[in-house]
Parts: sequence; structure tokens; C-alpha cells
Amino acid sequence: MSESRYQYDVIVVGAGHAGTEAAMAAARLGAKTALLTTNLDTVAQMSCNPAIGGIAKGQIVREIDAMGGIMGQAIDATGIQFRLLNRRKGPAMHSPRAQADKKAYQFWVKLAVEDQANLDLRQEIVSDLLTEEIDGSQRIIGVSVHGGAIYAAPCVVLTTGTFLSAIMHTGETKTPGGRGGEGTSSGISSALNRLGFRLDRFKTGTPARLNYNSIDFTQTELQPGDDDPQAFSYLTERLDLEQMPCHITYTNEKVHDLIRANLSRAPMYSGQIDSRGPRYCPSIEDKVVRFADKDRHQLFLEPEGFNSREVYVNGISTSLPRDVQDEMFKLIPGLENAQIMRYGYAVEYDFCPPDQLWPSLQTKEVRGLYFAGQINGTTGYEEAAAQGLMAGINAALEGRGEEPLVLGREQAYIGVLIDDLVTCGVDEPYRMFTSRAEHRLMLRQDNADRRLTPLAHDRGLIPPARWEAFHRKLQQIDTAMDVLGSTRHEGTLLSHILKRNDSSWEQVCELAPSLKETTDEAALQVTYDIRYEGYIARQQVEVERQKRLSHKRIPESFDFTRLTQMRTEAREKLSQIRPTSVAQAERISGITPSDIALLLVYLDGRMGAKSS
Amino acid sequence: MSESRYQYDVIVVGAGHAGTEAAMAAARLGAKTALLTTNLDTVAQMSCNPAIGGIAKGQIVREIDAMGGIMGQAIDATGIQFRLLNRRKGPAMHSPRAQADKKAYQFWVKLAVEDQANLDLRQEIVSDLLTEEIDGSQRIIGVSVHGGAIYAAPCVVLTTGTFLSAIMHTGETKTPGGRGGEGTSSGISSALNRLGFRLDRFKTGTPARLNYNSIDFTQTELQPGDDDPQAFSYLTERLDLEQMPCHITYTNEKVHDLIRANLSRAPMYSGQIDSRGPRYCPSIEDKVVRFADKDRHQLFLEPEGFNSREVYVNGISTSLPRDVQDEMFKLIPGLENAQIMRYGYAVEYDFCPPDQLWPSLQTKEVRGLYFAGQINGTTGYEEAAAQGLMAGINAALEGRGEEPLVLGREQAYIGVLIDDLVTCGVDEPYRMFTSRAEHRLMLRQDNADRRLTPLAHDRGLIPPARWEAFHRKLQQIDTAMDVLGSTRHEGTLLSHILKRNDSSWEQVCELAPSLKETTDEAALQVTYDIRYEGYIARQQVEVERQKRLSHKRIPESFDFTRLTQMRTEAREKLSQIRPTSVAQAERISGITPSDIALLLVYLDGRMGAKSS
Repeated sequence: MSESRYQYDVIVVGAGHAGTEAAMAAARLGAKTALLTTNLDTVAQMSCNPAIGGIAKGQIVREIDAMGGIMGQAIDATGIQFRLLNRRKGPAMHSPRAQADKKAYQFWVKLAVEDQANLDLRQEIVSDLLTEEIDGSQRIIGVSVHGGAIYAAPCVVLTTGTFLSAIMHTGETKTPGGRGGEGTSSGISSALNRLGFRLDRFKTGTPARLNYNSIDFTQTELQPGDDDPQAFSYLTERLDLEQMPCHITYTNEKVHDLIRANLSRAPMYSGQIDSRGPRYCPSIEDKVVRFADKDRHQLFLEPEGFNSREVYVNGISTSLPRDVQDEMFKLIPGLENAQIMRYGYAVEYDFCPPDQLWPSLQTKEVRGLYFAGQINGTTGYEEAAAQGLMAGINAALEGRGEEPLVLGREQAYIGVLIDDLVTCGVDEPYRMFTSRAEHRLMLRQDNADRRLTPLAHDRGLIPPARWEAFHRKLQQIDTAMDVLGSTRHEGTLLSHILKRNDSSWEQVCELAPSLKETTDEAALQVTYDIRYEGYIARQQVEVERQKRLSHKRIPESFDFTRLTQMRTEAREKLSQIRPTSVAQAERISGITPSDIALLLVYLDGRMGAKSS
Repeated sequence: MSESRYQYDVIVVGAGHAGTEAAMAAARLGAKTALLTTNLDTVAQMSCNPAIGGIAKGQIVREIDAMGGIMGQAIDATGIQFRLLNRRKGPAMHSPRAQADKKAYQFWVKLAVEDQANLDLRQEIVSDLLTEEIDGSQRIIGVSVHGGAIYAAPCVVLTTGTFLSAIMHTGETKTPGGRGGEGTSSGISSALNRLGFRLDRFKTGTPARLNYNSIDFTQTELQPGDDDPQAFSYLTERLDLEQMPCHITYTNEKVHDLIRANLSRAPMYSGQIDSRGPRYCPSIEDKVVRFADKDRHQLFLEPEGFNSREVYVNGISTSLPRDVQDEMFKLIPGLENAQIMRYGYAVEYDFCPPDQLWPSLQTKEVRGLYFAGQINGTTGYEEAAAQGLMAGINAALEGRGEEPLVLGREQAYIGVLIDDLVTCGVDEPYRMFTSRAEHRLMLRQDNADRRLTPLAHDRGLIPPARWEAFHRKLQQIDTAMDVLGSTRHEGTLLSHILKRNDSSWEQVCELAPSLKETTDEAALQVTYDIRYEGYIARQQVEVERQKRLSHKRIPESFDFTRLTQMRTEAREKLSQIRPTSVAQAERISGITPSDIALLLVYLDGRMGAKSS
């Protein structure tokens, strides 16, 4: 049996939300890239809710887009309901969210992948990871696939989602598999074990899907999209698709009683699953137990697209057995006669605790191997896509012998996400919140391009058209700033007028008509820049302090065990996480200011510990 | 663990081309129907070529449509290239064919299913068939599904496609599963064994899919669609979608040499697969062996839709190992640099030899259990859909205590198909050809509605709108016939003028201007009726003889072993097939006219054999 061999610069395993961004980014950087998936028909499939964005997640999508990723354009092309959440709060809280035409989304992404230069999308089952040992450390050299072929590459990005040794649970019934009807990837789990990775297990769940025609919408509340829908991508000029509304209904005490009576049959409570699930996206049985005083929980009825009658019931994810699911819906207003098309289920899967990663998302254990998405213990399409983007970029940069691109916590939610993962690990599926970002007033959804497009452009990720559009916007901002900073009305600078909460852009336009030529997008930037100048300046002080610590780099090979004067606990923590900067070291839980002071002394060469 | 129980009139297992037609037909007849599939995302998936129709198959689609089935409307809504094959031959050979936007087709059908009243589409894995014994014979009472639930019904239609104990082969590599990446249904195979069914194995194959962007189309021949595309459905007034061309290229001696050199590695030739494949849709390795003198084979490059770059390479189905597939394409003009997205593979699966069925498609072994599609040893979406339609109709009729609807060989290709299956069994995957129909001049694609819509209407399958449209057409035909049969030109009846091959409809319209109001469709019918009157009259004589024999019914319980004066071989054949009419008995291979004469004597009560 002769073995086929295909040579690439970067191989991405898995074509979900992480894998597609990773492969696209690597290919955009010129790396010859292979994207391998067990099933071409499920590329970028939305296995859970048919929506992109949401609080903090929407900001991430804007950041992905600002760096040339595809998620924003995909949802703009296929979204069926757009809403800017938290409109009435401050701009740091504004979060775009959209319902997707689920199948259209998936095929849009697949087509983008098929059309990307330097990128080969192929249906393959990866059976093993291939490594070699150089100077006592392991490095990846490729993967082998079912059917006796090798894909060789110096960099491999693993984005295996929930498919590693996955088990699905519906009540007492267990089925191997990471998604309705699909298989599992056990070869990769074994390979990771063999290579010395720690694996742990998480679980996640999904609710039932109902037939739209069987729902009595008169019993529900209408939730329309925004009248003036905002796009995710900085490149989208117009949202074309017709909009579809969602509907809202509620659970009630009868539903909760039914669930309580059947808790012993829920895998989470019966002990059948003992891994942890996402705290912030709990199953309905979790909610009933943890929020026992609440007499109802909100359910969103989300249509899955124009060409489907499947409705996703957001808020009632469950692993309860089918008879409980059947009874549950009969008790919910509007769903009394609802036809269940797919039952909810929970899935348990392997992940690799992410303190095994460098901030580039490269593994510490195996050179050239990157992890992105749920394999790192995260949850959410957006979190996955963000990691995929960064892993793909860094795999391609590594191939070119360039420094990795690592975003700071003050630069992007993506920076917060990855720093949290690699510095603190995870003890439950990690999702992003605005509260995780200490500089969130700077990390707004509106200014993602100003924060990130230049950085991405430096690395070659931004095509000319996007770069020119970005520059036209900057030009507009500068021009408007000049006008506002030099024009007075009754002695007051227009910039001071605009700073007042009771003023508006329209008012200053009346006072300086040339401002009317400013686009809405640029006007928003100018307004926020002026209004939040003070807050941002104060955040900037802390950012600068962090930056100085970030510049204190710690070599990858630094031997923390030799910091003999440091507390044992601190030494152990540092040895496990192996921070790459003093700033990262400072964020490790349990590391005190005096540990840091000591570390600085060592790094300055004032004590004997040396890098090996 | 409490067991859920759902009560239906008809349960259809499998939602491919057979299952969707079966479920829709049963539901249209008012039966409360459940359609169960292991994966809602693959309802009506085109697992092999992205096309509907073709020679004899196109006629079947027209017949399905004439009886109220959905395949015709589905392809009309999602077709991307329509061609009427054999245009230059006589009308019996005209065969519509269309390329489909593969994913659009699938989702169109799923939506139709979701919108059908009386029909519940549910994702379930069927694990067993449930029967009870009544008076020594078995009857179906439902199915059990994974997760401890029972779907109870007096009628069950099995349409399991290639999923029964399926194994996929790519060269030496075997994978359990009936389609790329999907699982297999072993529970049903066991149940069928237990219930006493004979199972046998067939194989089929599929070619690789290539990325459109990697093909050099300048090296290929363009194959556009028709300028005046004809719809499949009698209800379609206009075809809306943009048309896409196909392209043609050829294999060559170098390709054939490569294949010959690797024959020992092809599962078919190495002995790894010993089941039979479709003779008329052979793999490329079959073609190279069986047509050794041909120096090239034609390959059609068929696009899979507007939102995909996958291209189906029609004509090069193979189970050769990947390295041979890789090399093969490098030798084919236009495909030298083609990127393979999925490799070709063969699949082996269980089927039930169809002589175990009554002409209603109900099994002889288990009352109320019906088989349709590949489980009966057929190949082709159209053949599957036709059987599904009839099985669904008959399951619903059985539930109402009505006689089954069995089409005659003179009424429809569907009649020929099912009669061939149940009378002759299959020794290779069965596909339809015009040559299988002895009355093919009557079974034209243009007159399917006149042949079948009234029959279907009698059984309640035709909604009012379709019935009215049909009647308007009949009215037009009658009116035109009256004019042609009563108007003379220079002493000759217009009907005689139109009969001449050198005349045209336009000519007679000039002579009798009222004919101009006739629709094109009706004019075609009138022209054919007049031109082929003589041939059809001669066929009618044979049809009438057959009909008389068909009216000689043989009771289901008739004991052929008691025909002691008949040759042993004939008795054995008759006992196996258990024909339901003398006409069917006559068609059994090896049954002679004298056997039939003897049978008639018995049936007339002139000898002692009695039904038990």
C-alpha cells in the first residue's frame, strides 16, 4: 500500500468557526494551507443557536472583521434579524447581534473558503498527529489521515470542537458523537495523550428544534429586529436580506415542577455526566436548580432561516429524556402543540486546558502545533473564530520565521480572551463578557477597526480595498476633529459643545455645515472620542503601566524553578503557566506583587537565575 | 425508564428520495404520518450526481408529478441546467434531465415536507421493527427508536437507501457508513433477518468532487442547457433560475493504463467487494476492463450549484485508492491541476431481493410493512422516488381498508419498474431504460398526466388546482381534435394533413386560425395522438390481451405447490414469486405458455387445487 503525501505550510484540522477563520487567515498571509474536515457538508455549521454576536461576542466579531476575518461578512450576507443590544447603555456596552439563515451562513463560508487562493478544502478524517523530536523537544511535522495519506507541514492548527471522544446524552441514552448523527475523533484524543497533553472533559448542550407551523405565535411576544440594522463588517455597505422577527415566551412553575420531578433522570444530576458545562449558558435543569426562586425563564423562539421551518428554542437547552421534553413544551404558552423535530441533548467532549498554550496559541508541548476553539475549553462561535483567526495568523507567521501577533488586553477583546485562557486556564467553558475586559471603554464595537486594522495591515492581513476604506474613514475623523477643535459658537469650541450629553452631532452640524459631509460612522467615532476623552485618558495610564511590564519579556525557556527565593506556590504556578512577560505573570491567580518584584530582580540579572 | 409512545397511521423510515415521496403521499391522503431520519440536515440529499431525470428516468419524474408527487416541482424550483435528451428521436425517447443546485434541491424538499399537513418530520435513529403474530402471520405494529421510544402504526415504509450494514471502500481502506461521514443502520438489518427476509448485498460508487476554480475549462467542451428549457412539473409555468453550463472532457489511454496497472488495488477486482454494482453506471475500472477497445470515455463536469465550487465528475465513479485517483486526474485534459475535495468511493450495502414484495410494495412476509428505493435493489433517485410514492400511497390506502393502487406496465414506467422488481427480482442494481417498457410509445413524458392524473385523482391524490389545470388541457385537446377532424383544406381533413411528417402545427393553424388558441402543450398532445394513432392502436391490442390476463386475479394465499400436474421448476418459481394475476405469472422468467394454460385451468376451478 503506497502512502500519499501532500506538502503544505499550514494544516488546519476541523472546519467549524475556528478552523475556517484559521485557514482563511493563513492562506491570506500566503501560506499554502490545507483545511481538513470529516464532512464538507458541515463546514461552518451552526450546531447550536442560529445567531452571531451578542454582548461582548458582537465586539469580537467586529474585531475579527477589522483584522480581515470572515465572520462579519458572512453574517452580514446571511443575517435575517439584526439588533444592536444595550442601545440605551453607554457605547462600551453596545453589542451587535444577528440571527442567521443557518444554512445560508454555512454555505456562504464554505464558498469563501473554496474561493480563497492558497487554500485547499478537503474531506479527510485525521487519524494521528505526526511529530519528531529535535534537541529533546517535540515538533509537529504533519498529520496522517484515514486511507493512508500524510499531510506534511511545519505548522498544524487543531480546531476539533466538541468532537474529541464525544458522547451525546439525551436522558439515560448515550450515543458516541459530537453532533446529531455525526462521528467522533478518537484518534486525535489518543495522539494528544501520547504527546503529553493534559486532557479534561467539558459538556455543553443544545435545546430542541420545533416546527414553526406548530407554534401558536398569538401566545408569544413579538421581537422584531432593529429598524436601522447595523452591519457587522466594516466593508458592508448595505444589508440586503429581508428581516424575520423572533418571538418570546416563558417557562412557568408547572414546567419547573416537571423538571424538578425528573432531575434524577438528567445526566448532569444523575452523575452520568460529571464534567462541567457553561455557567452562563446553563441548561434549563441548571436554571431551575440554581435560580430556584425565579418563577419563569425567558425563551426566545429563533427561526433558522427562510428555507427551513426549524425553530431554535433559545433558553431551554437540556439533556432531559425525551418524555420530559415532550411534556415540558406542552406546558409552555404557544408551544402546547409544538412538534419537536430534534430533541435537545448534552454533549461531553475532551478539551486541553489552555494553560498549555503560549499567547500565540502555539502549544508549549509541541512546537508548531496550535489549538483554537472549543479544544481550549471555550464556548461560542465568536470565541472560536477569534482564536482560529489568531492561530491561523501565527501559524503562517511562524512558517515565515516572524514573531507571533499577540494582542494586548488593552487592544482587543481577543487579547483579553487569549490572555485569560493561557494565563488562568479554565474551570468551566469560557465565554466572553464585557466585564472581563478592564479597558472596555476602549474596546468598543465601533472602534475595532481603529484598534486593529493597522496592526493587521502591518502583518499583511489587510487587502488594499479594506485599507483604503479605513483610511478614508480616518481622514473623515481628522477633518471633523479639526473643524470641531477650531470652530467656536458664541465663544465656545464646538468640541466642547459636542462633549455635553445634551448636545448632538446634528446640533454641531448646524453650527459648522462642513461637518455634514462626515459619514455617520466617522461622526460616531468623533463624538465618542470627544465625550469619553477623560475616561480613556485615565484608562490609558493603567494601559501604559501594563505595557511597560509587557515589554519585560520572559524567555520561553526561562527556568522558574531556579527562583529559589520565591515562595514554592508562586514558583509552581509560574512553572506551569510559563508567562512570556511580567505583565502576564502578574495576572496569574495567586501571584503577589512581591513575587513580581522578585521576578523583576531576577530578570534584570541582579540575581543568579539564568535562562538555560 | 419510561417509554414514550407516538401513534401514527403511517411511519416512513428514511428521508431520501423514496422516503420523502412516501411520506408526502401518505400525508396527502390524510394519513397521520411520521417521517423519521437519522439526520435532518440530509433530507433529500443528492448523494451521488447532482441531477434529476435522464433517459427513461425523466419520464418517471413526469409520472411522479402527474400523480401529485414532489420531485418534479423540486427540480423545477432548483434546476440550474435543463435539457430534453433525444430531441431528434421520436417522442417516446424524449427524456427531460436537469442539473440541480444540490443544496437548494435538498432544502426545497425539506421545506415542502415541513409544510405538509398530517406529516411530522423527526430526527430519530430507528433501532428495531416491531411486529405481532396474528393467525400465524406477522404484521407490523411500529418501530422503536434510539432513546427508548416507540412509534406505533399499522403501516411502516422502509426506505433505508444504502445505509443497511453499509461499508465504504476507497482502495484498501474500509469505513463503516453509507455515505461520506455518516453512520450505518445495523439495527434494521438485524430486524429484517429476524423477520425472515432474505438479504443480499449490492455495491454502488461515486466519483471524486473537484474544486471548480482548479479546472482549466479551456481544455474542455462546453455543454449548455436548452435555449427553451422544459419544466418537469405540469404545474410549473416558468423556470426562474439562471442556467449554468456543464463541460465535457475525456479519459485517454494513459489514464486507462494507470487504472489497469492498479486494478489489483480496486476493491471490486481484489475480491474485497464481491457484491454486484450497477451495470449501466459502471465504475471507471469496470469500463476500462469491459470496454477494453475504447480509447477514451466521456466525462461530464457537473457544477453542484450556485453556492458551491464542488464539481461532480460524471463518468469516473471509482473505488480505486487515493493515490491512483490523484494521478488519474493529472492525466485528463483540463483536470491536470484539479483539486480533489472529496475522493470517490464505493459503498456496499444490504438490500432485500424484491421478489419478497407484492405489487403494492408491501412485503409478503410482514403485513403492513412496505419497502421502497435502494432497499429493493434499485439505483437512481427517480426509481427510488417512484417506489416511495407508490409505497406511501398504498400504505395510506391499506390504513383506510382500500385496495392498493398498482399501475400496469401499459400505464406507466412506474408500473414497469415495480412489475419487473416483484416479478423478476434483481441480479444487479436495477435502473430504468426505455427498452424495459414494451409499450413505450404510450408511456411518453409528454402524456404522463393523461395516463395517470385521473387514476391518482380517483384515489384522492390530486388537489383541486392541479385537477382543474389538467381539465383545461383536456378541453383544449378535445376542441383542437374537433376542429382538425371537421375542417377540410382542398378536400383533405386537417387531421390527415397534420398526420404527414412534412406538415407542422403551424401549417394547420394557418388553415384553421381558431387552433392558434391551443396551448403548446395541448398542441403537442394532439399532434402525437394523430401521428401515432396507428402504432398506438396496435400496441393497444396487446395491452388489452394483457389486461384480460391481469383481470384473472390469483388470491394472495393461493398454494402453487398443489399444482401437481405442473413442472416442478414452474411450481417452484410461482411459489417464490406468488404472482397476483395470470399476467404477472406469464412474465416470470422460465414460465412457459403451457404452464400458464395449466394455471388458467386450475383458476377456472376445472381442477382440484383450491386456495387455502
